[in-house]
Amino acid sequence: MQNKITVPFDPDGNLPLYEQIYRYIRDEIKIGHLAEGDKLPSTRRLSDHLQVSRTTVDTAYDQLLSEGYIEARPYRGYYVCPVEELFVYEKSNKKLVDRSVGIREETGEEHRFSRTNRDKDRMMNKDENHKPENQTSFRVDFSPYATENDEFPLGIWRKINKDLLLEERLHIFSRGNAQGEWELRETISRYLRGSRDVEASPEQIVIGAGNDYLLMLLHMMFCAEMGHKKAPSVAMESPTYPGAYNLFTALGCEMHLFSTDEHGPVVEELKGRDLDAVYVMPSHQFPTGAVMPIGRRMELLRYAASSPHCYIIEDDYDSEYRFRGKPIPALQASDSAGRVIYIGTFSKAIAPAIRVSYMVLPDHLLPIFHKVLGFLSCTVPRPDQMILREFLEQGSFEKHLNRMRKIYRGKMDVLLEEMAPLEGRFTIRGKDAGLHILLTGPCKDEKLTALAAKEGVKIYPLSAFYPGKQPEDTFSRCTVLLGFGGLKEEEIRLGAELLKKAWSQ
Amino acid sequence: MQNKITVPFDPDGNLPLYEQIYRYIRDEIKIGHLAEGDKLPSTRRLSDHLQVSRTTVDTAYDQLLSEGYIEARPYRGYYVCPVEELFVYEKSNKKLVDRSVGIREETGEEHRFSRTNRDKDRMMNKDENHKPENQTSFRVDFSPYATENDEFPLGIWRKINKDLLLEERLHIFSRGNAQGEWELRETISRYLRGSRDVEASPEQIVIGAGNDYLLMLLHMMFCAEMGHKKAPSVAMESPTYPGAYNLFTALGCEMHLFSTDEHGPVVEELKGRDLDAVYVMPSHQFPTGAVMPIGRRMELLRYAASSPHCYIIEDDYDSEYRFRGKPIPALQASDSAGRVIYIGTFSKAIAPAIRVSYMVLPDHLLPIFHKVLGFLSCTVPRPDQMILREFLEQGSFEKHLNRMRKIYRGKMDVLLEEMAPLEGRFTIRGKDAGLHILLTGPCKDEKLTALAAKEGVKIYPLSAFYPGKQPEDTFSRCTVLLGFGGLKEEEIRLGAELLKKAWSQ
Repeated sequence: MQNKITVPFDPDGNLPLYEQIYRYIRDEIKIGHLAEGDKLPSTRRLSDHLQVSRTTVDTAYDQLLSEGYIEARPYRGYYVCPVEELFVYEKSNKKLVDRSVGIREETGEEHRFSRTNRDKDRMMNKDENHKPENQTSFRVDFSPYATENDEFPLGIWRKINKDLLLEERLHIFSRGNAQGEWELRETISRYLRGSRDVEASPEQIVIGAGNDYLLMLLHMMFCAEMGHKKAPSVAMESPTYPGAYNLFTALGCEMHLFSTDEHGPVVEELKGRDLDAVYVMPSHQFPTGAVMPIGRRMELLRYAASSPHCYIIEDDYDSEYRFRGKPIPALQASDSAGRVIYIGTFSKAIAPAIRVSYMVLPDHLLPIFHKVLGFLSCTVPRPDQMILREFLEQGSFEKHLNRMRKIYRGKMDVLLEEMAPLEGRFTIRGKDAGLHILLTGPCKDEKLTALAAKEGVKIYPLSAFYPGKQPEDTFSRCTVLLGFGGLKEEEIRLGAELLKKAWSQ
Repeated sequence: MQNKITVPFDPDGNLPLYEQIYRYIRDEIKIGHLAEGDKLPSTRRLSDHLQVSRTTVDTAYDQLLSEGYIEARPYRGYYVCPVEELFVYEKSNKKLVDRSVGIREETGEEHRFSRTNRDKDRMMNKDENHKPENQTSFRVDFSPYATENDEFPLGIWRKINKDLLLEERLHIFSRGNAQGEWELRETISRYLRGSRDVEASPEQIVIGAGNDYLLMLLHMMFCAEMGHKKAPSVAMESPTYPGAYNLFTALGCEMHLFSTDEHGPVVEELKGRDLDAVYVMPSHQFPTGAVMPIGRRMELLRYAASSPHCYIIEDDYDSEYRFRGKPIPALQASDSAGRVIYIGTFSKAIAPAIRVSYMVLPDHLLPIFHKVLGFLSCTVPRPDQMILREFLEQGSFEKHLNRMRKIYRGKMDVLLEEMAPLEGRFTIRGKDAGLHILLTGPCKDEKLTALAAKEGVKIYPLSAFYPGKQPEDTFSRCTVLLGFGGLKEEEIRLGAELLKKAWSQ
């Protein structure tokens, strides 16, 4: 197999070496030159062979690993993963392989959510996670929703504001475009192409005040497409992000849940259901932090394309905060059938108070948007849109992101360093990306949470993120979330000390 | 009857004299001392009797007239109108009198909107009215939606911005309250009490990015209250505001229409329908410009209170722009049963790009809001909320409003002066308030519109504002809207000249 890896790379090219290696191997897998089960050369051999540093090959392999193209087998090396054949827009009669051999004992069960009062009340309790916490009763709150707010680039923001609010710009206070300002959509279009491989013309982009609002718009579009005959049916992974789940529920959607295993969401479970949308977070699932591997991505795209009217809503909520490897590509980038609706937000990357989200509609949804919702005014004030655009155009967003990535990675490292002594009794997940980690411990998450609370530390039990029936395996039952985005280094250290004390018995 | 009018007024009191007279007579009518059909003294007699100027009495009578307490009968004088007895929160068995003797030949007919494609397409054409117009093909566009955008108080806005974006205020970029910032809600609460007689605690106020967004929230609350068993049913006057109608339709609501006669909306037509909401604009109906008289207000409040789950959505969209008489009181101010949801906006009064609206929820809807929607983030950016609050608190809003009122009144006067030669052949309505007038002419509105278009002038046929079947009377068939908010004096004069030319044959 090793002979196959003869990367035709150009050391003077524009792409970094690791990226050229990564792309070459990825493409070899995609076109089938490297097949399921093939062994890759060791990083040492390949670096010798290509005359590049070992780190370069390591980085390329890490990226392939995190995107699910290859897997590492202990003491044996790297092997090509099973990857669904390349996505083709046509119904396939080939039975999809069930790969749900997983970390959990119970798989494949349909968690259809029944809208009883008890269930509702359970979800309501979950909402408390989403609201600003009353921190008075806790010394340290490891909220997975909190972000760093002291680093907002206020000086630059103020400068842009000042320059914008000039007499000759008075027109920005008049009525703007329903989809958002063309200039901002152009900028977002370029940003998405460069950073996320997402192809989106400004015509396809709709700007709105937050993801929830955009989901409300989608809901109306789905309803109109169906002639308002029934409520849209939406599938979400379990566990999932309660904010979106609650919104779909409040909109009256028929909710479907499907489980996840070690290979990502079990797409197989969606079969036979009459779905209008599948809501996923492929680059960094909330709350598990999982990256959806390429195999499941292809399976999901195929599922949507083969169903009569199913869209995939890709919530790429924190793609900016990946600390190891380059960002995971967006699912939208692999969608040739026009079934992925991509949603991104600036609230997480800039500041929660910046209420700007955007979605990319497939071309054939554009006429429906204009027909059903073209009369609406854009919910983001026009001056705010122009300020954001300037912030992006002058490179301040990129600089801010790089700073924040470093700051968050620093916080993550502090937390991991503090938690290292627990390893063995605890398993730590979610180290590569995002603003929280997951700890799986030796007892139920409720107990871990209660012990922490006794020491004045608020942590978040994973069981709170299951809208339906919760599996019985160790991961589902004994895992807690520790967010660090909103905490200072001292607070992280204090919280970690208290947790170790709480769990020392 | 005249002896009854002995206003016990205090010339040194805080209220203006006309207001004391107005209030005294209004209360006499409310408690029944003055009954339906009673004749009031002439303004000359009353001014002599009370030793006040004739203008003072005129102003008081004008206010009573515009609110529907009294009516003027040509050559005879002023008479007390039929007024529903005072609103009491209990089911009444008394049959309500049908007062639908009207300006139209066809009344009382139920305009139930059937959601056919043809109807949909018709409404879609209407939406064009709501979008920014492509003005290239018209020399003058009398859009009823346009506002004056050159008078935005940019200097003050910039100053507040600059003062706000200081380091010590960095917290305003973190996540805010779901209902909107408490400080802004407090300010709005005081503003509503002072200007609209609306009693609303900050707890009752929900801030959102535009009226449409607030209606989406209400829709979810209604759905949740009904356990998502059916789509909410909403009644609107016909003709009505297409923006709201289209939104309710996009939300899948079951739409009901009811007609209006010279006394306002024919509430009688709502009887026997299982409604969740009645959407009205009592202070200045769009597009007719009518003020809902006190009799119909009471009837409507009684209707809502006696139905099991019907709310009145009061859209008070341009209450600030009343040029004659003091502002018409909000319907919410008369609601003792907690059935009115009041919606106001700053987009019309400050600038279209300021996407801040607010609603006042009756107390018993608050737990439902928190349960169903408490997890949402406020769609208005927190800094924008604080800027608006400062704008209101430092008195800049009041000053701006007074300036705009003067500017708009000036524009209205120019248009009326220009149109005066048409009176006789045309009837002009809507002179007291708002940013458009209505002209009823000697032929169908489509013909008037087409003749105008030939001369390069865009006007708006009333028939475009009927979502359902349109009555056959002269007013409904031969009326056009002329908005002047976005036009300069020269443009108004030019447009009027062209119209007179167009209609001269």
